[in-house]
Amino acid sequence: MSNESSELCDVIFLPSGRRGKFKKGTPVLQVARELGVDLDSVCGGRGICTKCMISPTYGVYSKFGISSSESSISPINAVEKAASDRKHLSLPKGARLGCQAKVEGDLVIDVPLDSQVHKQIVRKRAEVRNIIVDPSTRLYFVEVEPPDIDNPEGDLERLKEALYRQWKLAGIIGDLRTLQMLQKALRDGKWKVTVAIYFGQGRSNGRIVNVWPGFYSGSVYGIAFDIGSTTVAAHCCDLRTGEVLSSAGLMNPQIRYGEDLMSRVSYSQMNPGGFTVMTSAVREAMNALIGQVTAEAMLDRHEILEAVVVANPIMHHLFLGIDPVELGVAPFALASSHSMTLWGKEVELDMHPDSRVYILPCIAGHVGADCAAVVLSEQVAHGDTTSLVIDVGTNAEIVLGNKHKIFACSSPTGPAFEGAQISCGQRAANGVIESVRIDPETKLPYFKVIGSEAWSNEEAFLDYTGGISGICGSGIIEVIAEMRMAGILTEDGEIIRPDGVEDSYNYVIEDNRTFSFVLHYEDEVPKVFVSQNDIRAIQLGKAALYAGIKLLMEKAGVESVDRVTLAGAFGAKISPRHAMTLGMIPDCDLNKVSSVGNAAGTGARIALLNASSRRDIELTVEKIEKIETATAPDFQRHFVEAMAIPHKVDKYSVLESVIGKIPDVQVKDRRKRRRR
Amino acid sequence: MSNESSELCDVIFLPSGRRGKFKKGTPVLQVARELGVDLDSVCGGRGICTKCMISPTYGVYSKFGISSSESSISPINAVEKAASDRKHLSLPKGARLGCQAKVEGDLVIDVPLDSQVHKQIVRKRAEVRNIIVDPSTRLYFVEVEPPDIDNPEGDLERLKEALYRQWKLAGIIGDLRTLQMLQKALRDGKWKVTVAIYFGQGRSNGRIVNVWPGFYSGSVYGIAFDIGSTTVAAHCCDLRTGEVLSSAGLMNPQIRYGEDLMSRVSYSQMNPGGFTVMTSAVREAMNALIGQVTAEAMLDRHEILEAVVVANPIMHHLFLGIDPVELGVAPFALASSHSMTLWGKEVELDMHPDSRVYILPCIAGHVGADCAAVVLSEQVAHGDTTSLVIDVGTNAEIVLGNKHKIFACSSPTGPAFEGAQISCGQRAANGVIESVRIDPETKLPYFKVIGSEAWSNEEAFLDYTGGISGICGSGIIEVIAEMRMAGILTEDGEIIRPDGVEDSYNYVIEDNRTFSFVLHYEDEVPKVFVSQNDIRAIQLGKAALYAGIKLLMEKAGVESVDRVTLAGAFGAKISPRHAMTLGMIPDCDLNKVSSVGNAAGTGARIALLNASSRRDIELTVEKIEKIETATAPDFQRHFVEAMAIPHKVDKYSVLESVIGKIPDVQVKDRRKRRRR
Repeated sequence: MSNESSELCDVIFLPSGRRGKFKKGTPVLQVARELGVDLDSVCGGRGICTKCMISPTYGVYSKFGISSSESSISPINAVEKAASDRKHLSLPKGARLGCQAKVEGDLVIDVPLDSQVHKQIVRKRAEVRNIIVDPSTRLYFVEVEPPDIDNPEGDLERLKEALYRQWKLAGIIGDLRTLQMLQKALRDGKWKVTVAIYFGQGRSNGRIVNVWPGFYSGSVYGIAFDIGSTTVAAHCCDLRTGEVLSSAGLMNPQIRYGEDLMSRVSYSQMNPGGFTVMTSAVREAMNALIGQVTAEAMLDRHEILEAVVVANPIMHHLFLGIDPVELGVAPFALASSHSMTLWGKEVELDMHPDSRVYILPCIAGHVGADCAAVVLSEQVAHGDTTSLVIDVGTNAEIVLGNKHKIFACSSPTGPAFEGAQISCGQRAANGVIESVRIDPETKLPYFKVIGSEAWSNEEAFLDYTGGISGICGSGIIEVIAEMRMAGILTEDGEIIRPDGVEDSYNYVIEDNRTFSFVLHYEDEVPKVFVSQNDIRAIQLGKAALYAGIKLLMEKAGVESVDRVTLAGAFGAKISPRHAMTLGMIPDCDLNKVSSVGNAAGTGARIALLNASSRRDIELTVEKIEKIETATAPDFQRHFVEAMAIPHKVDKYSVLESVIGKIPDVQVKDRRKRRRR
Repeated sequence: MSNESSELCDVIFLPSGRRGKFKKGTPVLQVARELGVDLDSVCGGRGICTKCMISPTYGVYSKFGISSSESSISPINAVEKAASDRKHLSLPKGARLGCQAKVEGDLVIDVPLDSQVHKQIVRKRAEVRNIIVDPSTRLYFVEVEPPDIDNPEGDLERLKEALYRQWKLAGIIGDLRTLQMLQKALRDGKWKVTVAIYFGQGRSNGRIVNVWPGFYSGSVYGIAFDIGSTTVAAHCCDLRTGEVLSSAGLMNPQIRYGEDLMSRVSYSQMNPGGFTVMTSAVREAMNALIGQVTAEAMLDRHEILEAVVVANPIMHHLFLGIDPVELGVAPFALASSHSMTLWGKEVELDMHPDSRVYILPCIAGHVGADCAAVVLSEQVAHGDTTSLVIDVGTNAEIVLGNKHKIFACSSPTGPAFEGAQISCGQRAANGVIESVRIDPETKLPYFKVIGSEAWSNEEAFLDYTGGISGICGSGIIEVIAEMRMAGILTEDGEIIRPDGVEDSYNYVIEDNRTFSFVLHYEDEVPKVFVSQNDIRAIQLGKAALYAGIKLLMEKAGVESVDRVTLAGAFGAKISPRHAMTLGMIPDCDLNKVSSVGNAAGTGARIALLNASSRRDIELTVEKIEKIETATAPDFQRHFVEAMAIPHKVDKYSVLESVIGKIPDVQVKDRRKRRRR
C-alpha cells in the first residue's frame, strides 16, 4: 500500500490537454479538480449524479510519451456497477465515474461534452463567440449533520456548514422561504438534500433558492424575456445544458393604451397613475408566456428559478412599475440606468417564489437594455474590427465600436420604416408585399407577398389565392431602391416617368401634381402604390438613420466600418443591398453586412446562461460613450446631407456580389391575370 | 484674509473635552468632525436641520488655559437668523448652528444633549449600562445633480453619487420601490431630497428605504415586539431620540389553538399545516398593535421603518411561518438559530413597504430569542461579576455567566408557577391573591389581592368590594414559603397541623388523608386553599428550576452567584425572599436579587435603538454554552436533592434585610368579617 501510494502516474485529460503527476489511488475527479479540468459534479463525489462521467482511453500515446492501459485505472466498483444498471442516469459502456475510478497508472482520459461544467453553445455565425454555459444558479447535493440535542445549531446553520465543508461555499444565505421548507426536506431526504444556490457576481454570498429532499435529478430552468413595444417574447432554457426548451411570443397588450411608445407615455401623462395599468398588462402577458413556455417544456412554472429581461427604456420602466413620463421629455432621465437584480415576486412574475430576475442596464434615455443585449450578443466591445450595429424601429438605436472604444446613439427615424404613415403601409402579415424588384428594361414591378414563396411573375404564384393588401417596411425600402435604380426616382427623391417605356406603361401615375408608383392593380384601381409623400417620409427616416451613423463615425474618427449588423425584426427582413442603395447604411462590402434577427433576445439568453456576461455588459455599457443626437450640432448637417438618394448603381454589378440571393426568373407582366 | 486663515485657534468641546487647533474661519461642524466630536447633522451643513445646534460659552477658562469671548465666533449670519425666526426647528437664544458659525478665536463650545448623535438613554438600575442611541436606519439630506441630456446616468445613480460626495456613503443600494418613487420626489424637491438608509452591520452597503422630497423634518420610527405565548407587546420608538412614544399589548390570539406552547405544537401535529393559522393569528395581532401604537404616537403605520422581534422558539417559528413541530420532540431542532433580517412584507407586517424586521438569535431549541434579549438587556456577558438570570414560565430559561464565560439551559418547571394545575390557581387578574403572610405566632394567614392596595387584615381592606377568586403563581410561592416558616410544612413538603394553635384553628383541614391549608373561607366553605397535591406540583417545579441552576453553577465551576435577576411577568411579581426560602433560587444577598420585569422587551428595544448591540448579542449567543437538562446526567441528581424545602429560616432575621418591604401591620383575624 505504502509503496503503491508513493508511485506517481502521468494523467492527461482531453480535449484540454491538461496533465500532471499524481499518486496511485487518487480518484479521477480529484485529479481533474487539482488540474483545473472542467469536470462536472452535482453530488460531490458520491456516485449519484453521474455528471462526472469520463472515458479512459487506452493505447500508446507517443505524442504525450506515455501509454495507457486498462490496468491504469481501478476496476469498476459497486457504485459504478449500480450506476450502469440504473434506468435513469445510467452509465454508457466503457464510461466510468470520475469520483469512483482511481488512477492506477499512466492514463489518458477523455472528458465528454456532457461532463463539462462550462458547456459551449456553438453559434453559427463566425463573427460571434460561442456561449459558455455558466449560470448564476447551480445545484449542490449535500449531506447535513443530523441535529444533536447537545448542540442546538439550527438546521439552516448545519446546512451552511455542510455546504462549506463539502463544497467550500462560504457565506451562503438562506432566506425565510428556505427556512420554511428546510426542515421537512432534510427529514424527508434523510439528511441529504439538493440545494439550488443563486450567486450574484462571483462565487461568494450565494443565496439558497430551493431545497429538494435527497438527490434531485432535474435541472435548473430559466426564461429570457424580450419586451418589445409590439411583442413580448420568452425563451425557456435549461441552465445546465444551455438548451432552449421552448419559445413563445405574444402581442404586447399595452398596445391598447397606445400603438407606439410615445403614445403610451402620453397615456400615462393624460391619466395620472395610468402607467400602472400598462405595468399590469405587460406583467400579465409575461405570466401568460411563462405558462406557455413551461407547458411546452413539460415543466411546472414554479420550476423557473431565474429570468432575464431586456426592453427599451419605456418598456423597461413600465415593466418595473415606474412612471415613464420622464422619458417622454428632454433630458429623458432614466429612473436608473444600471442593471438590476430583483425577486420575481417584486415584479409579480409567477415563477418559483424565490426566483431572481436580472435586468440588463440601459445605455441612455432612448437606448435601452434591449440595445445593451444586442451589444452583448454581437460582442461589439470585444472585436478588433469596427462594427456598426443598427436596430431600426420608430427610433433607430445605433452602436459603433470595437474593443477599444464604443459609441451609441438613438436617432428619430419615425414610424415610416415600420410601414406606419405610409399610404399602403402595413405591419408584416399574410398578403403584405415584403420584397420588390423592378425590371431595369421594362420598368415593370414584381414582388413577393408574405404567405407565398413565389415571386408575382412566376408560374407558382398562380397558386397563391390570398389577397394583396399593402406593403411592409422592408418592401418599401426595396421598392424605393429599385425605383432609383430603374430611373423612376431622381437623386432628390422625386418620382418621374422613366425613359423608354411604352405609352401604355401605367405604373407611374399622376396624382395632383406629383406622381405615384403603382405596384399592384386590383380591378383596374391602384391597390398598392408608393406616393411622393411616402418617398419623403422614407427619405426623412433614412436621413435620420444615416446622420446618426455619420455622427458616431465622426466621433469614433473612422471613415468606414468593417461590419454592419442589422438587428431586430425589421433588420431581419431588410435587404442589405437595397438599404445600401437607398443610403440607409454606409457603403461596405456586402458580405460584411448581416441581418441577425432578434439579437436582443439572444443577448438576454446569453445573460441568462452565463453569469459573467452580466458583469461584462455592465462594464461595456459604462464604457459606451453616449451621443445625444438632439443636441449634437453636427447631426442637422448630416441629416440634410443624407436626404438625397445619390447612388444610381449598376444593378447587376451589385447583384453579382450576392449571387444566389436573387432568383433568375423571367420577367413577365402578371398583372392582367391577377386582375382576372 | 490670508493672514487670518493662517492663524490657529484653540477649540474645546464640552462635555467631551476634545480639543484641537484650527484655522480661523473653520466652521464649527467641520472642527467637530475632525475632532470626532459627536455633533449631529442631517442636512449636511446647509443650515436646514438645526441638528448641529451648539452653545458657545464665553469667559476665562484657566483650567484649559484659554479665554473665549463673543468675538471668538463669527457673527450670526442670514441662515442662522432665518433659523431663529422659524416656528418649527427654531434656534434657542444664544445657540448657534455648528455648520454656519465659524471659529474666529480661542473658543469653548458646549454640545447640548439634543445635538449629540449618540444620545444616551439612562437606565435606572445601576447594574446595567445606559442605552446608546445609534439606530440602523438614518436620515440624510442630499442635493442631487439634475439630469443632463449628454450624460444619461439614471436618477438613482446620481442620487448615489451625491450620497457618496456629500456623505461619503459608498455602495448604497436603491431597490425597486425606491426607484418607483424617486423621480417624483427629486422633481418635487427640486433636486433636494431626504433619504432614509438602512444599514446592516457596519456603515457600508446601506439600502435606501424611503425618499422624501426636500428636507424631511420628521424622525425615523421603529417598533420593538415581544411575542409571548400569552401576550404580544409592542413599543413604538423614535429611533433618533430613543424615546418610547407609545406601548401596547394584546392577548396572543393563538391561545384559541392551545393554552400553552406544547398544546400549540400538538395542534400543528394534529392538523397538518395547522401552524399557518397560528402564523396568521399572531401576525394579525401584531398588525393590530402597529395600528394602536402608531395611532397613539400620532404616526401613520407606514412611517414605521424598522421592527425588532423577540420570542421564544415556538413563537419565533410560528411568527416566521415555520412549522414548530420539530421543537416538540427531541432533539428540538430549530430551523435556524441565527438572527435574521427580513422585509416587513415577508412576514406580512403592515408597516412601511420597505421596512426591515430584525429577529434576535435563538440560544437553543428551548431557549429563544426572548432569552437572548434578556441577556442583552441584563448585559450578562459584560460584567465581571457572575450573574444568574431566570425567566420562569412553563419552562424556566436560566442563564449564568460573566464576561468570561456564559451558560444557558431550559428547565421543565411545568405550569404550576403560572397557577395552572393548582387547585385554586388562576392567572393574575382582579380578585386573585398575589401575596400571602402567615403570622408566626397565631399561624393566621392574611393576604393581598390584585385590585386592592391593602392587606386583608387592614382596615382599608373593608373598602374592597370585589370577590376573592383564587391564587396566582407569586401567591403560591409566598404561601408555601410562609407555611414552611410557620411550621405548617415539613422539610419534605408535607402539610401538618402546626403546634400551639387553638382547637378552633381551622386553616389546616384534613381532606382524604392529607391536609390542605385554607387562605380564605366564603360562607364557611374553603374558597381559596393549597392542597398537598399543589405543594407537590410546586416542589417539582422549584426542584426543576433549582436543579437547572445547580447544573449551570457546576458547569461554570462556581459555588455562589453575585447577582440574581428575575425576568418576565412572573419574575416581576415574585418575592425574592420567599423564592429563596422555598429554595427556588440559590442563597445570595437579598440586595443583589432584583426583579426586572419585561427584560425581553427591553432587550428588543435596545436592539432597535442600537445597531451594534445586534452584533453584540449575536456574538454572545455564539459564545453561550448550551446545556441540555434532558440529557445531563447530573440534572436528575440535583432534581431529587432539590425536592426538599430545607430552610426554616427565622423570618424576622430575613425580614431585617428587606426592611420597609413588609408592612408593619397589626395581625388580626379578618376572616369572620369577610364571611359576613
